[in-house]
Amino acid sequence: MTRQGIALQDRFNRPLMFVLRLAAAVDADPKGALIAAVRQAGARIVELTLADVADNDVLMDMTLLTTGDEQLAAVRQAVATVAGVRLVNITDCALESHRGGACQMVSRSPIASNTDLRVVYTPGVARVCRAIQKDPALARTYTNVANKVAIVTNGTAILGLGDIGPLAGLPVMEGKAAIFWEFVKISAEPVLINTKDPDEFVNIMEKLAIGFGAIQVEDVAAPECFQITRELDRRLPIPVMHDDQHGTATICLAGLFSALRKTGKKMHELTVAISGAGAAGTAIADMLYTAGVADVVLTDSVGVIHRGRTQRMNADKHALAERTNRDNIQGTLADAMKGRQVFIGVSQPNIVTKDMVRSMAKDPIVFALANPVSEITVSDAYEAGAAVAADGRMMNNALAYPGIFRGALDCGTTIITVEMCLAAASALADIVPAGEFLPDMMDPRTHQTVTEAVIAAAGPGTALVK
Amino acid sequence: MTRQGIALQDRFNRPLMFVLRLAAAVDADPKGALIAAVRQAGARIVELTLADVADNDVLMDMTLLTTGDEQLAAVRQAVATVAGVRLVNITDCALESHRGGACQMVSRSPIASNTDLRVVYTPGVARVCRAIQKDPALARTYTNVANKVAIVTNGTAILGLGDIGPLAGLPVMEGKAAIFWEFVKISAEPVLINTKDPDEFVNIMEKLAIGFGAIQVEDVAAPECFQITRELDRRLPIPVMHDDQHGTATICLAGLFSALRKTGKKMHELTVAISGAGAAGTAIADMLYTAGVADVVLTDSVGVIHRGRTQRMNADKHALAERTNRDNIQGTLADAMKGRQVFIGVSQPNIVTKDMVRSMAKDPIVFALANPVSEITVSDAYEAGAAVAADGRMMNNALAYPGIFRGALDCGTTIITVEMCLAAASALADIVPAGEFLPDMMDPRTHQTVTEAVIAAAGPGTALVK
Repeated sequence: MTRQGIALQDRFNRPLMFVLRLAAAVDADPKGALIAAVRQAGARIVELTLADVADNDVLMDMTLLTTGDEQLAAVRQAVATVAGVRLVNITDCALESHRGGACQMVSRSPIASNTDLRVVYTPGVARVCRAIQKDPALARTYTNVANKVAIVTNGTAILGLGDIGPLAGLPVMEGKAAIFWEFVKISAEPVLINTKDPDEFVNIMEKLAIGFGAIQVEDVAAPECFQITRELDRRLPIPVMHDDQHGTATICLAGLFSALRKTGKKMHELTVAISGAGAAGTAIADMLYTAGVADVVLTDSVGVIHRGRTQRMNADKHALAERTNRDNIQGTLADAMKGRQVFIGVSQPNIVTKDMVRSMAKDPIVFALANPVSEITVSDAYEAGAAVAADGRMMNNALAYPGIFRGALDCGTTIITVEMCLAAASALADIVPAGEFLPDMMDPRTHQTVTEAVIAAAGPGTALVK
Repeated sequence: MTRQGIALQDRFNRPLMFVLRLAAAVDADPKGALIAAVRQAGARIVELTLADVADNDVLMDMTLLTTGDEQLAAVRQAVATVAGVRLVNITDCALESHRGGACQMVSRSPIASNTDLRVVYTPGVARVCRAIQKDPALARTYTNVANKVAIVTNGTAILGLGDIGPLAGLPVMEGKAAIFWEFVKISAEPVLINTKDPDEFVNIMEKLAIGFGAIQVEDVAAPECFQITRELDRRLPIPVMHDDQHGTATICLAGLFSALRKTGKKMHELTVAISGAGAAGTAIADMLYTAGVADVVLTDSVGVIHRGRTQRMNADKHALAERTNRDNIQGTLADAMKGRQVFIGVSQPNIVTKDMVRSMAKDPIVFALANPVSEITVSDAYEAGAAVAADGRMMNNALAYPGIFRGALDCGTTIITVEMCLAAASALADIVPAGEFLPDMMDPRTHQTVTEAVIAAAGPGTALVK
């Protein structure tokens, strides 16, 4: 299937792929009418092949990019109107790509003979065990541990889907493991911990950590994720990162560095409004301050987080109120955005209007990252005067975390610092191709660049979680 | 490196492989003297290649099979006596084969384009998550969970090495994972739990089990392993097996079925003495009774386990005394072996003499499985009149557990029963090639046969742990 070379626009706007198996009589030629009907329904055809010829029927596979189920339904209706064509079935490529799972544990060498077996297993393996028993540091050489990342979740905040549990979240962990392997050859293992108790989560992961070189906490809900990441980082001698906090923050900073180059704005002049004070919003705010912005205000479902607020606060939000919102402004998201240079949304669909963007400072930067539907569309943000606008599809964490972990494992650091993430963000901005917003995730040099930046920035630094 | 085609005898007697890098002057030809010296030292040369030519030196790599470090030292001394040859370095093939680890987690499909990424990861993956959220059984189709085995240890009884901890035991777990992949394409993940508390071990594994299709408990010391296996099997809806108990017992039974065919003895007439009342001995005894033997007596370091014994007993040993040793005999291992048809050793090196074998019933069967040095050598057992004798090198668990787990996963059983293990053992004996003792582990049909036998025997049965 030729999946490449599809226009950027289509990839972003019609991200869901389906294959329609269609039957037509051998002597009919409905292809033209079929193509017209499917395009009329709004889908993009990326491939049409003859799949099989039965006694009286020709079977065709038509691969489509769509916006989702609604557009697929429209396609289905459109196909039904084409004479001489019958829809046999529809394959959901997302489901198909996960059939049997997205990752698997394999042997690093073939076991082709009894001698191979005696070398890799008993009695040979006893020599390896004894060597590590004498010098535990040798585990980094003679096991996979130095290249192994735990992708650990309890399933309480899977993507934009919420608390669907660890098993339903497993495809995300497997997808991340596949990305780790494909992009930076890290052996990453999904670890599902079936508990919502953060203390139990930490205690269990602490006992498992001896088998890993680093830990990626994934899709754990706030505020528990703060405690979990902080405690694991404190207790364990290996790096810990919560992708939804620091992966997202790193990509935000990369986008911001890129936007600054386009707009000529300066980091220390920036005032920022963030919609969403969960895992991502909190980490973004902290990383922005380390990067040197002038001020950050965060809002949640209640409104601006400020000192003195009492409604729906917790320890983490009180601490946040202390270290953000210089002028202690109050009010709604609309109030927070007024006159600000930058808006970053990590919250809810469609909560930002064009007027709210118009109320911002001149040439504002708008990152509307809510998934799958953003706070405001990129085109609406541009219409309202944004100098740079981007959504979550254009700012994917997979640009950052593979190289961050590759770098952390390779330099043997015991913690991932804010400085390492900032170095990664800056390095990403350095290699943005002309006319683009961020580098190409498919280019191995992108991840190599992040890796090198992280290694160069390793050393004493600021802990990720305040 | 040509590792195949090495005579069986050498594989068993000289299981440890090394590569000697040797330098000789370009104009010298010490090959003949070198080969003679190394053979004199007792090692078997399996390959000799020209590895490189430097300015004045020819570099050669000589691959050797040896009995271990002592023989290697003799080789080193022998090489030193050969004029014109210099030993540059020695590579330990067991260590080398574990460099970087024996297994790794990889993507099941390439991620070659942004479209691939959008299918396997966001936004496509959200469709997979939602499907599993609605119907958790779909996790077996759209994740790797139905093909995933946890190889879980706390490192308290690694091989014959004892309590060396989970990290030093990791090479064994990785080796097993490599075997699972190579033999039956199961994705098996080492899970190191850094605790000696059996309750904590069970509680942690219970919380992790949602991510696995089955659990192989590995190298956990007795008596904790009994409680751990029993509790996990009771609490979890997926199959649990402790290889050191039931994998070993299955291979013992396979060997016994094979020996019965050679000797014409009948299962129900057999009286058995087992040296070692830990994980393996206990499981072997129970499986022998299910198979229908007449009587089993076990011994430990104190002597025969019998009703009324008080020294070094625990709950598991008291229960064992109740269900074994029909005539409640007392005494030493020598007493236990007198007049018995079968001896099975899963204990200590060199504790059985030829006279003890001579004291057994006519044409006795002797399985001396202690690792790496057996209770009595196979040749001594034969000299003392054994009809069939075997040691641990000839009876490898890797003949059984891959097919047992493949079968258990494929038939969706919730427990592995004694009946399934017995069926595996019997099926292995059915396919022993003429003149051999057990089937070839390298033949894929061996594991296919075990798999099919396990599936056929699935259904209500006897729990593995009493």
